[in-house]
Amino acid sequence: MTRTKEITMTPETARPFIDIHVPVAAALAAGKPVVALESTIITHGMPYPDNSAMAANVEKIITDEGAVPATIAVVNGRIKIGLSDGERESLAMTGGAMKLSRADMAYAVAEGRTGGTTVAATMIAAHLVGIKVFATGGIGGVHKGAEKSFDISADLDELARTPVIVVSAGAKAILDIEKTLEVLETRGVPVVAYGSDIVPAFWSRKSPYAAPLRLDAAEKIARLYQTRAALGLDGGLLVANPVPESDEIPTERMAGYIKAAQKAAEAQNISGKAVTPFLLAKILELTNGASLKTNIALVENNARLAAKIAISLSR
Amino acid sequence: MTRTKEITMTPETARPFIDIHVPVAAALAAGKPVVALESTIITHGMPYPDNSAMAANVEKIITDEGAVPATIAVVNGRIKIGLSDGERESLAMTGGAMKLSRADMAYAVAEGRTGGTTVAATMIAAHLVGIKVFATGGIGGVHKGAEKSFDISADLDELARTPVIVVSAGAKAILDIEKTLEVLETRGVPVVAYGSDIVPAFWSRKSPYAAPLRLDAAEKIARLYQTRAALGLDGGLLVANPVPESDEIPTERMAGYIKAAQKAAEAQNISGKAVTPFLLAKILELTNGASLKTNIALVENNARLAAKIAISLSR
Amino acid sequence: MTRTKEITMTPETARPFIDIHVPVAAALAAGKPVVALESTIITHGMPYPDNSAMAANVEKIITDEGAVPATIAVVNGRIKIGLSDGERESLAMTGGAMKLSRADMAYAVAEGRTGGTTVAATMIAAHLVGIKVFATGGIGGVHKGAEKSFDISADLDELARTPVIVVSAGAKAILDIEKTLEVLETRGVPVVAYGSDIVPAFWSRKSPYAAPLRLDAAEKIARLYQTRAALGLDGGLLVANPVPESDEIPTERMAGYIKAAQKAAEAQNISGKAVTPFLLAKILELTNGASLKTNIALVENNARLAAKIAISLSR
Ligand SMILES: [Mn+2]
Ligand SMILES: [Mn+2]
Ligand SMILES: [Mn+2]
Repeated sequence: MTRTKEITMTPETARPFIDIHVPVAAALAAGKPVVALESTIITHGMPYPDNSAMAANVEKIITDEGAVPATIAVVNGRIKIGLSDGERESLAMTGGAMKLSRADMAYAVAEGRTGGTTVAATMIAAHLVGIKVFATGGIGGVHKGAEKSFDISADLDELARTPVIVVSAGAKAILDIEKTLEVLETRGVPVVAYGSDIVPAFWSRKSPYAAPLRLDAAEKIARLYQTRAALGLDGGLLVANPVPESDEIPTERMAGYIKAAQKAAEAQNISGKAVTPFLLAKILELTNGASLKTNIALVENNARLAAKIAISLSR
Repeated sequence: MTRTKEITMTPETARPFIDIHVPVAAALAAGKPVVALESTIITHGMPYPDNSAMAANVEKIITDEGAVPATIAVVNGRIKIGLSDGERESLAMTGGAMKLSRADMAYAVAEGRTGGTTVAATMIAAHLVGIKVFATGGIGGVHKGAEKSFDISADLDELARTPVIVVSAGAKAILDIEKTLEVLETRGVPVVAYGSDIVPAFWSRKSPYAAPLRLDAAEKIARLYQTRAALGLDGGLLVANPVPESDEIPTERMAGYIKAAQKAAEAQNISGKAVTPFLLAKILELTNGASLKTNIALVENNARLAAKIAISLSR
Repeated sequence: MTRTKEITMTPETARPFIDIHVPVAAALAAGKPVVALESTIITHGMPYPDNSAMAANVEKIITDEGAVPATIAVVNGRIKIGLSDGERESLAMTGGAMKLSRADMAYAVAEGRTGGTTVAATMIAAHLVGIKVFATGGIGGVHKGAEKSFDISADLDELARTPVIVVSAGAKAILDIEKTLEVLETRGVPVVAYGSDIVPAFWSRKSPYAAPLRLDAAEKIARLYQTRAALGLDGGLLVANPVPESDEIPTERMAGYIKAAQKAAEAQNISGKAVTPFLLAKILELTNGASLKTNIALVENNARLAAKIAISLSR
């Protein structure tokens, strides 16, 4: 197919705020494959030193596949595109980091703060430097009870506007997956299940919901992205990649854990921003740590697929 | 008023994916009036050969008014802007066509699939080649029960972003018209009732809702569009054109049919994507076919008004 | 920091529709500080001559601070950026003005109508001529009961797209402040409480909700705006500025008035667009006019802060 021109370039005004790690800058300049990684999984997702080990390992997987990893974060007001081993280790040990999304990313920059970047903020930063592929665990979405709380992640609007391929295991399964799919459809975001007719549910390979679209090869995902860009269609592309069978916790079993965790949250009157961390911690406890093992496995699995897509795009 | 420059031109990267039918290309090059038509009404709206006859007739109406019709579809991965008689007939006979919106249009192109274009996808394709006016039956909108299901058509977001005039008979009356109007207001979309102080309700000339805006002449609608473009305001313009009196099914009578159809859907446990086709089929049965006759009449009525607006814009 | 280039300039096609008041045009040309003011507060917010006196006084406050005020309105189809004393007085006496938002602003222009500009329409007009700061009372937001009515102000979507700093005392407290904050987060809009850890509630300095972001100096707000623009992040910035203590009606007291007003609205079956004016009138009555005094005080307070921010931006 016709190669599309670069759809982004760092605006000159943005450059003074951005530090691109040398191997990433070299790869971008040479048109070699780069995969962005988020950092809230480091700052807010796991305790030290698990977070540090996981982050280093995911970078290694991307390198082994033949692409260059670029973990994104804001450190002391600098937008970091790729971290050195020391910087990554240091971020993993930072207490009190912000959790940055579109609304507060510039605030962290202007005020010299440090923060992990969510899916939305990582997409923004990746796009600023021309990285087209990003691997994460699960995206944010419509929270359960959003019909009353209006609590909907900014990740969905970001997917509708910023042209980055987000490789995930779907929306985190403590969210309302059905409503998340509805909002993505309303906003015009392609949701591609990789090798499956069913949308995966983070820890589980299956959800009750049919995949809006299905593709079975990294090259096909790359081509879909290029076709969208060529047609001038804004926005990203959500890849929902089921966790490997050997690592999954089946849907029915997870449903029980999720329900039990929600019951506990209600009993203890947990509300607002505290709900998600509470649920994840409770599920970790209920599964005797298996949920974390699955979480790590799915991130690694997504990193592998993201590298393949990035390589395909760079050809 | 000052003539605004063309607000769109096909991006060079998009051209390899698009086939413009010769008479449409000639009209666009000469600045002559063109009216886009959607194709889900052909692939999903009516059985063969009714769909084919209707589509041919609507094209004839536009031609007779002095404009050039451009039925839009995706055929074997090609974005078709205007179909030959043979292509239209062939599309009308195609089984298993996709129903394409913003989220999956590029997928159909990249994968070589065939699909009817919804309001959203038709707007995108029309805008890609610089067509400013599009005639349809009724737009998608907020589904009844969306406060629980979050089921909202991508047509509304498209109206907020893509500068095309959509001439309709309002939102399909099985939808929640009141909530649809609220979302359009929130998104900043002008809703202009043509010659009426009341928003029409597809099969009926009236709904319980006051028209946000009213204009009584095609020239005025053209001027509103040009003024919005001149001011740099993004997005489309929804014209709500009441079906002719001789063809309408009055609001009160329709309300009964719609309620009965919904009751039947509940009794038979119809849900999700299956609801709309079920309701339309049930209403066809309850009205002894009158709902289809009205549907055809309103599309023709919209085609006539759209042609007049396109002629006005081309002056 | 690196100075960002002007992020807007009036499109040539828009100029024929716009009248810039001479002192405003001179200030814009010289890069001097300008503060936009809305006009629905004049046409729909207060009776004559209170509205006229208030509007004149707010302009004087901005002038005294060292910036140039630009009250924005549509008069007989002309977009007015800044009004002469006579024009302002005349607008204050106009009956039957429209209340203009994104959806109907171009209609008023095309049809030669007169209207007050809401927050959304004022942002659009300010941005058209390169004004970056705008002072108002309170923004529109998510209406109470929006989970059923879907009634959400277009101001929120405008904040997500148009790069103007809106200095307010928060959302009007008859709205659902919690849901308004959720939608702003989803849409990626920074909400900065000025000198407070708590989001203010229009007539009251406090609401039950933590401020998403806090800044304590006008210069910091200017810098946040410049950083966002430099990073290429679209959209505005909402400053929530608590009313001075001496003028506030405390939260607990206001809660009682708001509840009583809502009860009265239900008892009298007030619905739709009539609800807001009814509630405000009822609250005026219940507070013996104190709510209006507070409203005027908070607008003046916002004008002062907006002037400081504009001065900071012009340095
Ligand atoms: Mn949230
Ligand atoms: Mn839907
Ligand atoms: Mn409203």
